[in-house]
Amino acid sequence: MTAKQDKTLTSSGFYVSQEAPIHTDNPIPTPSAPAPDILRCAYMELVVTDLERSRNFYVDVLGLTVTEEDENTVYLRSIEEFIHHNLVLRKGPVAAVAAFSYRVRSPEELDKAVAFYTELGCRVERRADGFTKGIGESVRVEDPLGFPYEFFYDVEHVERLAWRYDLYTPGALVRLDHFNQVTPDVPRAVAFMQDLGFRVTEDIQDDEGTVYAAWMRRKPTVHDTAMTGGDGPRMHHVAFSTHEKHNILAICDKLGALRMSDRIERGPGRHGVSNAFYLYLRDPDGHRVEIYTQDYYTGDPDNPVVTWDVHDNQRRDWWGNPVVPSWYTEASLVLDLDGNPQPVVARTDASEMAVTIGADGFSYTRPGEGEESMPEWKKGEYKLGHQL
Amino acid sequence: MTAKQDKTLTSSGFYVSQEAPIHTDNPIPTPSAPAPDILRCAYMELVVTDLERSRNFYVDVLGLTVTEEDENTVYLRSIEEFIHHNLVLRKGPVAAVAAFSYRVRSPEELDKAVAFYTELGCRVERRADGFTKGIGESVRVEDPLGFPYEFFYDVEHVERLAWRYDLYTPGALVRLDHFNQVTPDVPRAVAFMQDLGFRVTEDIQDDEGTVYAAWMRRKPTVHDTAMTGGDGPRMHHVAFSTHEKHNILAICDKLGALRMSDRIERGPGRHGVSNAFYLYLRDPDGHRVEIYTQDYYTGDPDNPVVTWDVHDNQRRDWWGNPVVPSWYTEASLVLDLDGNPQPVVARTDASEMAVTIGADGFSYTRPGEGEESMPEWKKGEYKLGHQL
Amino acid sequence: MTAKQDKTLTSSGFYVSQEAPIHTDNPIPTPSAPAPDILRCAYMELVVTDLERSRNFYVDVLGLTVTEEDENTVYLRSIEEFIHHNLVLRKGPVAAVAAFSYRVRSPEELDKAVAFYTELGCRVERRADGFTKGIGESVRVEDPLGFPYEFFYDVEHVERLAWRYDLYTPGALVRLDHFNQVTPDVPRAVAFMQDLGFRVTEDIQDDEGTVYAAWMRRKPTVHDTAMTGGDGPRMHHVAFSTHEKHNILAICDKLGALRMSDRIERGPGRHGVSNAFYLYLRDPDGHRVEIYTQDYYTGDPDNPVVTWDVHDNQRRDWWGNPVVPSWYTEASLVLDLDGNPQPVVARTDASEMAVTIGADGFSYTRPGEGEESMPEWKKGEYKLGHQL
Amino acid sequence: MTAKQDKTLTSSGFYVSQEAPIHTDNPIPTPSAPAPDILRCAYMELVVTDLERSRNFYVDVLGLTVTEEDENTVYLRSIEEFIHHNLVLRKGPVAAVAAFSYRVRSPEELDKAVAFYTELGCRVERRADGFTKGIGESVRVEDPLGFPYEFFYDVEHVERLAWRYDLYTPGALVRLDHFNQVTPDVPRAVAFMQDLGFRVTEDIQDDEGTVYAAWMRRKPTVHDTAMTGGDGPRMHHVAFSTHEKHNILAICDKLGALRMSDRIERGPGRHGVSNAFYLYLRDPDGHRVEIYTQDYYTGDPDNPVVTWDVHDNQRRDWWGNPVVPSWYTEASLVLDLDGNPQPVVARTDASEMAVTIGADGFSYTRPGEGEESMPEWKKGEYKLGHQL
Repeated sequence: MTAKQDKTLTSSGFYVSQEAPIHTDNPIPTPSAPAPDILRCAYMELVVTDLERSRNFYVDVLGLTVTEEDENTVYLRSIEEFIHHNLVLRKGPVAAVAAFSYRVRSPEELDKAVAFYTELGCRVERRADGFTKGIGESVRVEDPLGFPYEFFYDVEHVERLAWRYDLYTPGALVRLDHFNQVTPDVPRAVAFMQDLGFRVTEDIQDDEGTVYAAWMRRKPTVHDTAMTGGDGPRMHHVAFSTHEKHNILAICDKLGALRMSDRIERGPGRHGVSNAFYLYLRDPDGHRVEIYTQDYYTGDPDNPVVTWDVHDNQRRDWWGNPVVPSWYTEASLVLDLDGNPQPVVARTDASEMAVTIGADGFSYTRPGEGEESMPEWKKGEYKLGHQL
Repeated sequence: MTAKQDKTLTSSGFYVSQEAPIHTDNPIPTPSAPAPDILRCAYMELVVTDLERSRNFYVDVLGLTVTEEDENTVYLRSIEEFIHHNLVLRKGPVAAVAAFSYRVRSPEELDKAVAFYTELGCRVERRADGFTKGIGESVRVEDPLGFPYEFFYDVEHVERLAWRYDLYTPGALVRLDHFNQVTPDVPRAVAFMQDLGFRVTEDIQDDEGTVYAAWMRRKPTVHDTAMTGGDGPRMHHVAFSTHEKHNILAICDKLGALRMSDRIERGPGRHGVSNAFYLYLRDPDGHRVEIYTQDYYTGDPDNPVVTWDVHDNQRRDWWGNPVVPSWYTEASLVLDLDGNPQPVVARTDASEMAVTIGADGFSYTRPGEGEESMPEWKKGEYKLGHQL
Repeated sequence: MTAKQDKTLTSSGFYVSQEAPIHTDNPIPTPSAPAPDILRCAYMELVVTDLERSRNFYVDVLGLTVTEEDENTVYLRSIEEFIHHNLVLRKGPVAAVAAFSYRVRSPEELDKAVAFYTELGCRVERRADGFTKGIGESVRVEDPLGFPYEFFYDVEHVERLAWRYDLYTPGALVRLDHFNQVTPDVPRAVAFMQDLGFRVTEDIQDDEGTVYAAWMRRKPTVHDTAMTGGDGPRMHHVAFSTHEKHNILAICDKLGALRMSDRIERGPGRHGVSNAFYLYLRDPDGHRVEIYTQDYYTGDPDNPVVTWDVHDNQRRDWWGNPVVPSWYTEASLVLDLDGNPQPVVARTDASEMAVTIGADGFSYTRPGEGEESMPEWKKGEYKLGHQL
Repeated sequence: MTAKQDKTLTSSGFYVSQEAPIHTDNPIPTPSAPAPDILRCAYMELVVTDLERSRNFYVDVLGLTVTEEDENTVYLRSIEEFIHHNLVLRKGPVAAVAAFSYRVRSPEELDKAVAFYTELGCRVERRADGFTKGIGESVRVEDPLGFPYEFFYDVEHVERLAWRYDLYTPGALVRLDHFNQVTPDVPRAVAFMQDLGFRVTEDIQDDEGTVYAAWMRRKPTVHDTAMTGGDGPRMHHVAFSTHEKHNILAICDKLGALRMSDRIERGPGRHGVSNAFYLYLRDPDGHRVEIYTQDYYTGDPDNPVVTWDVHDNQRRDWWGNPVVPSWYTEASLVLDLDGNPQPVVARTDASEMAVTIGADGFSYTRPGEGEESMPEWKKGEYKLGHQL
């Protein structure tokens, strides 16, 4: 942890520092092989138990574009995408994530990926024809944290539909923005991701240095993936972007009109972390999908790292709305390369839910003021969580 | 109550009918004197305990325009208003509402107001110079429901600042939209308001005909005031309009930036009732202010009356987000014409909070499906309320 | 004309007055019979020459809802409407307007309409079954200005789709807002409309008192119809509302995507008059359609009348973008009750186009500063018009 | 030029190709020294003739944040920026651009910049303390096209105000997005910029291969700078981003309210090229500023290059609104390293204005259809230009 004196308190109530203020006592060894040069998170492969119902959710409700489909699989993309897909729905017996897939800068980077993970002792599988349609040579690994990661460069180009406003819905999803992973030991996971070439942009911790979550990027947005502390490996959510905030509100309105409002788990709201506007949905299998817009540019190497206090109740929602418990506790299983769910290991560090809305919670709105300074009506909202 | 067979189920899950489906067994007698011709809700006079703090909230945070002020009073208007004020903040010992003020069509309507309320045995006070600055001859009454109502026509015109975009903030409030009153017996209150010339646009009831709330209008929006069932007479909220939804989100963002997010009590969200986009704030005295935008035209005499089932969890929030308990239970005192708080009478009919998020609650997302059809994560949100 | 000393210059550069500052030396006699009580503009009946092409424009492109249709006629409504239609497309040999239709407060108002127009010597036709499907008893007249006006109360109710967000497009049209008529003598037309019960909200004139256009309302928006000076009787446009400004931009984007951008005639922009955000389209027959949002409340009887100087180049577009010539010169024919086009009478008063962008134009951005104070690039835009 | 058969026609009417379809017969030699690794366009130094008036425009009207200022210079940044400034206003005798400044990845890249430009025979000046406050060691060059380019890494960090919503105006500028340069020979300029490490994202050409403009990026947006064909070297514009489209409309509204609408030169509108929403303003010296939002991600190395036909009248404005002549002809001078204006060399290739809105123009809305298919009213708008 960066010592507190090396962090600068901003006028917005969080801290900034130059170096990611996260350190681990239990690191995964850094490979001597260089990491592959990753461009961006590119697609997620989701196993769903009822393909028709999931297709309805992602295509008819959320409006993703079908690039291609067959009886077991649907390949979907966002409206500004030019690669074959950003999401694969594959029918299977257990709802889970089969791959977090990243695009690398060139075909040669696959060799680096193989060497990097092989040195770590991970199971690695390389396929010349790829694992999903539309994608060429690919490498899949079971990473040291237990997640199924994929890397590819070759991909079929399809038409970028950005100008096809005749196809836009009021809630049009324009890009895949990021993944979010649940892992028990966040500092350990972050150190590993830094070895893989990711850079931390924001994190949440407490005065004792417990790290509750961290956000990391390759492309110059707030993240390509994040590590959320919890029982893992599990997938917390996959996020798509809209152009504007009203697009996100339109999705809520449509879910209401379809009498599917119970797919809304949390939000809409403004994140503290990332400063983005957000909404969390749950798909028919319970996979969590975030709709997200308007974070900030992070591409400079000295981009200030933002650290939030776990007790700041504006960190997760800038408007101070409490996080619902399911958002903290529920997540999707991830698969190994044989398609079997990875066992889930319990987090032993403090739980963010417990220290905030749980029995021992003491959140504040104004740094330096205790929870007692909150109006009664607001305390009431937070106290609900105390009874869980 | 309109018999269920006379109401038409819409494809959106609520009912419409021609006649307001609300009847009372305990009516206030209808005066033989005609009611005054009311144009619209015009302003509220609020007693606040710390004038500077309230001025900061309404002027510096919410951006209302100061028309005039002195050491005890601040006169505020919205940016499209051309009459002297829409809100008066007056310093006083007890936070309360001193007047719900309506504009009438002509000076002659004041005579009608006097006759109407006098016949009802209400206390009536008429002042040639008005009760607040900028307003001419006015009539104030203690109405049969216990509320301090005011009527006036003469008013000082001030500049409508609608074109002064150099003065707009991101969350600019453009109009006073409506009041909302808490009263124990909604059907009785509605019948009285109908005698006063109001027309019901929407209501919430259950299969037994218990009415939980009703919305009534003079100007052709969903309401100039609403009657919310609860211990009363109290003031539930006063509402201002913005042009667009992002203006409301900007208010939330600003409250976050000012570390005043605990002023946000509920929302933002989309109402089922009224179809408007909303946010509820609490001012420094706890007076509730709604920010509201985009309801619909109701000016035709046969405008369909919308009736919502109290168990439809999209009635209050179209996205199915539960209402926080304080929103149901807390409200502001109202004053009599001597400036003393009116005693509060308990509601004896069923409570909307109790039948929805309380111990006996069974809300549904899809008409005809029980609460058990909700996903667990959503039920979890509603169950929180069960423990209150 | 209100003497200039009776008008108040605002900080926004226009004048306000209490009485509409428009007088005529050539009035239509005021009938002794009272005018019918008009609620609002309700629908327009348009004759189109290619029904399929027009249906494509209004339904597939603009997204209006088809209430009913047959091989010769399409009945359309906006998404918040509960009466049968707001627009009728009827196949015919000559593109024209068959009716400007208004809803009145009760069936009895039809008797008043008959008496009012009969006294004026107008042709009047009353049909118990109405002139279009879904509308009951109706009165149509050839009014003294040559326009085909209709009045009705009885109408078939259809579902108000306001909550059906699954049906919304990004550019959803939510209400019929107003008509706009072209007539040679604006003061004469205004005086007649005042007799019919309309109230002026805004107008454009010059220092000599020439009136170029005037806006008049029944419902409390800026207008139900406007009178634009020009060769007439003709129909200038019919206007539909959206909820927000981005909805209007989405219509432009969609027209681009469909390679139909040449349907855009003017805008989008912000009006000076009305303060609304606007866009003008031309349908396949050249009928002009405005998309409009966010004017202001005008329902008080003493609502200030706004008068714009014809030389103020922000009057028609608050951003100072010049009006294209076709917008001034082109308009649709209107039909008599036999279905024949009304002859068009030339305007003899000064033309707004001529005095602003024409050879003698001298527009200003800042009141009191001559055209020479404009930067060269801006003068260049206006000079284009000089060469017409 | 990429042969037409190697470009793919999209459903939106433009072409895509893998290789930038631009070639020059008159290249600047490619240096053997490697190019510096550029992160992004970082700031522009503008010479203004009346500092107070310019400060009013950029600070009071556009709302940029003053990081620091003295009597001759104002240092401004956008609200999401963490480096010292994005715009420097420096008082001087001749309105001009003193520097197009780019940030590089590390201090070492400055050595590369020196070597790269030295090998090209350019004048190079390196200053350990930088050329403007807040910036450390910097290299300025007179590049082979005649533009004053700057490179730096060291910079003073200031607070990123992204979360300070209390400081946002309705038209808040959140990022510097790009520069745009005017140069006579676009293919020659593009080839040079490719040597400098830029990648083409879009261009405009005709069937004969004349290139009218090209867009190039380092950060993964559509551009960090563009080359516009015309008499040069001159600066066409500098562009700032907003979050949403309504923010841009709010700037127009505010300029209207301030009676400064003649600062609006073109727009607002939707670009064909870049798919962004735009507005062009002119500052008090005539320097052009674009306000811009919502282009697309271009960070993959095989991002499809978009080529527009110069005769497609949706290329510059997706809604088909004609470009005003001043936008094509006017631009700002640029300075050499001694502060003297660079001489301007005339373009000899065809002029985009001449071939589109000029005497020989034949633009189309629908590919394959001639100008005659446009409705008369639209042709009228374009014909205006024919008379220049």
